[in-house]
Amino acid sequence: MFIENINNANDIKKIDKKNLPVLAEEIRRFLVENVSKTGGHLASNLGVVELTMALHYCLNIDKDKIVWDVGHQAYVHKILTGRRKDFHTLRTLDGICGFPKPKESKYDAFAAGHSSTSISAAFGMAVARDLKHTTEKIFAVIGDGSFTGGMAYEAMNNAGRSGKDIVVILNDNEMSISTNVGALSRHLNDLRTEAAYLNAKERVHNFFDKIPVVGKSMDKAVTAVKDSVKHMIVSGVLFEEMGFNYIGPVDGHNINSLIDVIGNIKNMHGPILLHVKTKKGKGYYFAENDPAKFHGVGKFDIRNGKITKKQSAKSYSAVFGDTLTLLAEKDPLITASSAAMVEGTGLKGFGEKFPERLFDVGIAEQHAVTFCAGLAASGMKPVFAVYSTFLQRGYDQIIHDVCLQELPVIFAIDRAGIVGADGETHQGIFDIAYLMPISNINITAPRNGAELEALLQFALNSGEAFAIRYPRSSIPDDGYTNIPEIKKGKAELIKKGEKIAIISCGSMFETCMEVYESLEKDGFNPMVYNARFLKPMDEEMIKNCCENCDYIFTVEDGIRLGGFGNAVIEKIADLGYKNKTIHNFGFENSFIEHGTREELFERYKLDSKGILEKIRTLIS
Amino acid sequence: MFIENINNANDIKKIDKKNLPVLAEEIRRFLVENVSKTGGHLASNLGVVELTMALHYCLNIDKDKIVWDVGHQAYVHKILTGRRKDFHTLRTLDGICGFPKPKESKYDAFAAGHSSTSISAAFGMAVARDLKHTTEKIFAVIGDGSFTGGMAYEAMNNAGRSGKDIVVILNDNEMSISTNVGALSRHLNDLRTEAAYLNAKERVHNFFDKIPVVGKSMDKAVTAVKDSVKHMIVSGVLFEEMGFNYIGPVDGHNINSLIDVIGNIKNMHGPILLHVKTKKGKGYYFAENDPAKFHGVGKFDIRNGKITKKQSAKSYSAVFGDTLTLLAEKDPLITASSAAMVEGTGLKGFGEKFPERLFDVGIAEQHAVTFCAGLAASGMKPVFAVYSTFLQRGYDQIIHDVCLQELPVIFAIDRAGIVGADGETHQGIFDIAYLMPISNINITAPRNGAELEALLQFALNSGEAFAIRYPRSSIPDDGYTNIPEIKKGKAELIKKGEKIAIISCGSMFETCMEVYESLEKDGFNPMVYNARFLKPMDEEMIKNCCENCDYIFTVEDGIRLGGFGNAVIEKIADLGYKNKTIHNFGFENSFIEHGTREELFERYKLDSKGILEKIRTLIS
Repeated sequence: MFIENINNANDIKKIDKKNLPVLAEEIRRFLVENVSKTGGHLASNLGVVELTMALHYCLNIDKDKIVWDVGHQAYVHKILTGRRKDFHTLRTLDGICGFPKPKESKYDAFAAGHSSTSISAAFGMAVARDLKHTTEKIFAVIGDGSFTGGMAYEAMNNAGRSGKDIVVILNDNEMSISTNVGALSRHLNDLRTEAAYLNAKERVHNFFDKIPVVGKSMDKAVTAVKDSVKHMIVSGVLFEEMGFNYIGPVDGHNINSLIDVIGNIKNMHGPILLHVKTKKGKGYYFAENDPAKFHGVGKFDIRNGKITKKQSAKSYSAVFGDTLTLLAEKDPLITASSAAMVEGTGLKGFGEKFPERLFDVGIAEQHAVTFCAGLAASGMKPVFAVYSTFLQRGYDQIIHDVCLQELPVIFAIDRAGIVGADGETHQGIFDIAYLMPISNINITAPRNGAELEALLQFALNSGEAFAIRYPRSSIPDDGYTNIPEIKKGKAELIKKGEKIAIISCGSMFETCMEVYESLEKDGFNPMVYNARFLKPMDEEMIKNCCENCDYIFTVEDGIRLGGFGNAVIEKIADLGYKNKTIHNFGFENSFIEHGTREELFERYKLDSKGILEKIRTLIS
Repeated sequence: MFIENINNANDIKKIDKKNLPVLAEEIRRFLVENVSKTGGHLASNLGVVELTMALHYCLNIDKDKIVWDVGHQAYVHKILTGRRKDFHTLRTLDGICGFPKPKESKYDAFAAGHSSTSISAAFGMAVARDLKHTTEKIFAVIGDGSFTGGMAYEAMNNAGRSGKDIVVILNDNEMSISTNVGALSRHLNDLRTEAAYLNAKERVHNFFDKIPVVGKSMDKAVTAVKDSVKHMIVSGVLFEEMGFNYIGPVDGHNINSLIDVIGNIKNMHGPILLHVKTKKGKGYYFAENDPAKFHGVGKFDIRNGKITKKQSAKSYSAVFGDTLTLLAEKDPLITASSAAMVEGTGLKGFGEKFPERLFDVGIAEQHAVTFCAGLAASGMKPVFAVYSTFLQRGYDQIIHDVCLQELPVIFAIDRAGIVGADGETHQGIFDIAYLMPISNINITAPRNGAELEALLQFALNSGEAFAIRYPRSSIPDDGYTNIPEIKKGKAELIKKGEKIAIISCGSMFETCMEVYESLEKDGFNPMVYNARFLKPMDEEMIKNCCENCDYIFTVEDGIRLGGFGNAVIEKIADLGYKNKTIHNFGFENSFIEHGTREELFERYKLDSKGILEKIRTLIS
């Protein structure tokens, strides 16, 4: 087994070139075996085995830099840089992160988890290199899906013009997480037929050569024609237009051609775009056939590719998708948008039923938000289903295009709070804080599936902008479906009580009820609220808490600073209540590592035990 | 005077076509006269006189929609839609807004103030139209500068593929606010030479026709060549690649050709890109010669184009630029970046002295932030000078690329707080709130020029991420240059005192001192702090306030919810102080209209009078 000799960076260089295809297969087996036990991003990593090997074979990785876009395809890179033996800890608490992380290894040049950042970062590194007169090579590896993000275009535009030495490797695997979108995709499809075009080019060449009169006294116009043929047909004109020297396409599963071409271009100058064609899931039958399923996958049975995790209760995403589909049957004004996350956000069924009302805009959250604003300005009821962490990309548009104009866009914010194994780049713990300062938007959080349904329906009828945030988890099996009517800015009083008030946000409800029950056993009779509306805040709730209680506790799965609890304290101050003991439970630090939701709530003392401990200290 | 008959929308259609060039000149004179008195965006509006007229001449503006990108070029549109008589109130309190504003007029289809949003919004409207089976025409008008923003590319990519009827007018005036940047700019330059290329195309055509053998039995390859010539050379291949039918370039100052072409394309189908060439400042000598100066201009003397506003004290921007230039002389690691705002952010001098260390990346804040992160990851000391309102565009990148990796990027946040006449799209009142929840960044606000200098120097030596926020105003003429040493997280105690504590943020300092003096006259002895560091917060300051005072007031020029004051209340609660009367002075509403800084502070009771009134109520 060659893979057993891969223990440190550069070990790959000790392996005879003719054995690299065997090593590639060993790495594939290693990936499939490990990810089948840990879960993780499988298909994209199977796709870049040879590409990653070739990069490590050709580069001086102690000096040269590889910036992985999105970063979920960096497993092979991790295996080749001394992390093979720890790989079984992937995405588990205190184990190896599923994304590049400079704090984990000096070989991870730049952290990533969101899309389309690699060219910007790599260009910054290239500029730094030239200003410091060092000589390292800078490579960015970016998928065709990430290219739909405008940031990549901003960076290409800037880097292309600079003339600096930088290599952008386009990992063209023909799909982003959902099916790829837009003109770029079509452009790549055209390039894929380059064999045909190459023949065409050859024929043109021969054609000119065979015309004796013109052959020698070649007219300027003809030169222009030939140049434009080369340009347009063979060379990826979009990239050339941006100032990049286009090379490719290259077969991304032929390790020897990859080594040849990377070995060559690493010594070339100026901005280079290397187009590599790869296949997601390459080498594992089930992943090749259903790369979307094996994009981010749970534990599975290697023999049949079946997910081994037991079927749990319905997820919030599924409740959202099903509810929206039902509502859309009655209301033709409802539309759904997604930024390349149709399946993840539960919109697949909606799209099957209403293909003309589902808009997958690509990895383009900025555009998605303002596109929805445009829909709303023309009287539609747009819903943008998006992960909390990715909505950060559309922040300016929420302020400037939606809320400033009071347009009724609904933000279905999935993966709000702790997301688990994806870790610090993906935690959805900022959305409450970043939305709170914005006027003209309702911010809500349901405590179960039924409340999510009711809030979605209410939002769509409100004519106002709404954020509905819910976690990456199953809905509680609470049997509680007959929830009290939704009223704007009104909380749900769960327990009348005294002395101690607990105000719960959304999915923290079950934890709060555990705390309540323990306190009850201690002999207290706490008041409990489900806030439901984080903004506008229920003033009556605050008054009721302050009139009847000395201790007021808020509980949310987001950052404390600027969060819901913060707003509660301010409201209490504004209402002139004094002498209260108040504590806001939430995350102190913005960057929470990977681990299960349960593990992380425990570690950050946001499980019922941690909360109870703090409350007991404060009330004693 | 034809302009006197322009009182309502559609009035332009009553004017004989042959007289439109005269009307254009009258509009130009009207613009120059008005803007010379009010200040405003002159050059860009002079550039679109004929284009706007042609649109209003050809469209049914009661039904059809024009979405103006950035929006500062919508003056002529306002004049043609019933706002001529109020135009002297432009950008003044309760007067006409300098940007499109649907609440001001139903003819403003979509609000704007930030760049690159128009295609997204227009595409949303086009989709809504088709779903609702209505028939309005949708036009987006976008400048070449705005095209450097990735959001425009995201939208083109999506709209191009859709095949929907939408017209994007590229207003190509060869410059954004600073000089235009990047590959797109070069692409447009190529198009500008289309006359030359047209000739080339003609020659190719003739050339093929004259080859008898091939002329008839035309080879497929040759067809491909001809197609690609058409495509590549004449037709704006970049746009065609994106699925748009490219038309142009058209002379943007020939009203009759514009009417012809717009009249034609409004009935064409599918996505259309109309390329219109205009000249910024057209028709006013001084603006044509120095369009950057007349981009956003103060009051000026029409006869000589000189700004009439008296030279006031040095601006914060100038202090920033000069200080950075000085520091960069000694430290070769310092770089400066701007997103098309080199002059506005005071970096012109830096760029003249260190052209190789100034990076104008185009209107591309997302890329700018991560580019700086890349520079920092390679050991440089990057400073990104950016207006507060535009930094919203780079929010995800601040979190995901800078702070998560603890990279020492310095954000010089200009135009923080109230910006004045630009109004609600431009107020810099969110930055404190949106930065506060993020770990690994210092947030600071100087109270004068000397403190800005000291903070900038401190930040550059800290090895940490820093935000330094300062307003669009002159530095106070306080003669106070010997400021106490900067220490991380430490505030400046200005007045020891008792009972009442006032904590001032940055430029609110002078107001706070006025309040202090009035309270002193009332017989109080207030404690006063200059917070300096909004994060990390000076705990000693909080303890000192709470140990000695019953009333604690914070004053900031940002949104209250999630702002500095909010963090102060939370800190007081965390430290266990009770029974304090606390009030945070700041903006209650996120969207503050245009007016002077003084007028707006007065209106929102954030001048010393308003603050004093509230304090007196609370302490009595």
